[in-house]
Amino acid sequence: MGLIGGSFGMALKKRGLVGKVVGVGRNPKRLQLAQDLGAIDSWSVELDDVIPDCDLVYISTPVGLVLDFVKKVSPLVKADCIITDAGSTKADICRGADAVLGDRHSFVGGHPMAGSEVAGVETAHPDLFVGATYVLTPTTHTKPASAERMRSIAESIGSRVLSIDPEGHDRCTAVISHLPHVIAAAMISMTADHSTHDPEVFDFVAGSFRDMTRVAGSSPELWRDICFTNAESILSAAKDFRKALDAGLDFLESGNSEGFERWFSEAKEIRDSRVRKPDSSPGD
Amino acid sequence: MGLIGGSFGMALKKRGLVGKVVGVGRNPKRLQLAQDLGAIDSWSVELDDVIPDCDLVYISTPVGLVLDFVKKVSPLVKADCIITDAGSTKADICRGADAVLGDRHSFVGGHPMAGSEVAGVETAHPDLFVGATYVLTPTTHTKPASAERMRSIAESIGSRVLSIDPEGHDRCTAVISHLPHVIAAAMISMTADHSTHDPEVFDFVAGSFRDMTRVAGSSPELWRDICFTNAESILSAAKDFRKALDAGLDFLESGNSEGFERWFSEAKEIRDSRVRKPDSSPGD
Repeated sequence: MGLIGGSFGMALKKRGLVGKVVGVGRNPKRLQLAQDLGAIDSWSVELDDVIPDCDLVYISTPVGLVLDFVKKVSPLVKADCIITDAGSTKADICRGADAVLGDRHSFVGGHPMAGSEVAGVETAHPDLFVGATYVLTPTTHTKPASAERMRSIAESIGSRVLSIDPEGHDRCTAVISHLPHVIAAAMISMTADHSTHDPEVFDFVAGSFRDMTRVAGSSPELWRDICFTNAESILSAAKDFRKALDAGLDFLESGNSEGFERWFSEAKEIRDSRVRKPDSSPGD
Repeated sequence: MGLIGGSFGMALKKRGLVGKVVGVGRNPKRLQLAQDLGAIDSWSVELDDVIPDCDLVYISTPVGLVLDFVKKVSPLVKADCIITDAGSTKADICRGADAVLGDRHSFVGGHPMAGSEVAGVETAHPDLFVGATYVLTPTTHTKPASAERMRSIAESIGSRVLSIDPEGHDRCTAVISHLPHVIAAAMISMTADHSTHDPEVFDFVAGSFRDMTRVAGSSPELWRDICFTNAESILSAAKDFRKALDAGLDFLESGNSEGFERWFSEAKEIRDSRVRKPDSSPGD
């Protein structure tokens, strides 16, 4: 029970979309905390006690553990139960689920683009998903009715649903989220190196640097798993990023100030028109 | 009269630090707006009418025009008048001032690390500088009394003052601000390129990408000037950034997940400890 699982429970309960929410985890203290916070109605440390009665199983573990839980949960569920997850990468998980589930296929891959680097059920809240993009990644093995049900649930908790194949999801999140996390860490790393020459450098930090490096404060374990389940797309995005950066820097190096202004101006135009304004969603 | 000049006027007036603030510019409508907003007490379009009576001249033009105004203003000022500026790069301006001012040297280079990409006196407010870093860049030609006076003024409007030579300022801002602006534009450019393959990519945008690319919405003209008066330091920072990015990506490419986690973890530690929390300063 962390930020996502806790917020999902709260979101369903607040809107009266669910009879009972049961939390399952390893740590009784954290589970009790989740119950005290109103994220769940009860809890257990045993999957076997809980899963057979469920209509929906929501796996909100770190991305590297999702498929294991799909495998554990799948033999226990009712025929019409939906299993879904909140993992930040989707191809490994969804193709893995396709491979192991066979005709008991009740899985719908999901990725709510909400949350922040501060994890923990303490930060959960029932409107976390409002205004956020909730990505669903059905495959040809996914039952259309299950995908439709998940879309309806995600919309009911206030999200915009985006349906895309798992590989498309992973390419897009590499560009929009995963590589940017690596870039943020690299910006910190460069600045730390620079501080050996100019010890004052961190005193110059203001809003832009703080914003651009915020996600470098994310959990290293979590982001190791995310990056290593999407390495190929991230490396490909990095190649494109280097090319784009070099294009801008080349104008600077060659003294082409008109070209630089045009390049920056094009980016500004795209940013102004295509990066939507923040809404009630607090981050990703 | 824009965000910085307007806010400086408001900041002085709010704290009773000044007898009269007179705005000088080319556009009577904008000057009248500045007066209506309470940033100035009166205005003129003629330097000659205003400057001879001033105790402090605050040049808040785009960075490429600062030195021209130093040259224009310098012959008009009283002997004990201080001339200062708010330009985002300092070496060209301060070394230029050293070269042209001679024994009438009354200049103190300044850079308030406050403001945002949204310029215009409409967004000015009297507490813009509260909690912000206000960099002063005296040289060996700067009168110590002038530098001391500027420090006192900047502190009086709520800023932390950082004193550093102009070249040190430019190296540090290249790392903390200028290169990050180019990186943000490159991230947008890469994403736009990617959208030709995956048109959905911009639908994945959430808080981290929005925050990391915010400064790509800055004024292209302004940032062309800033970058072209600090090209050498930016290109040098870019070399270091590429090295740092490659270090992270190499772990990913070679499948060294432990190394990657350690690398990310080091960045997180540095970020958590050395990038100070946001305060009342709204940005840079």
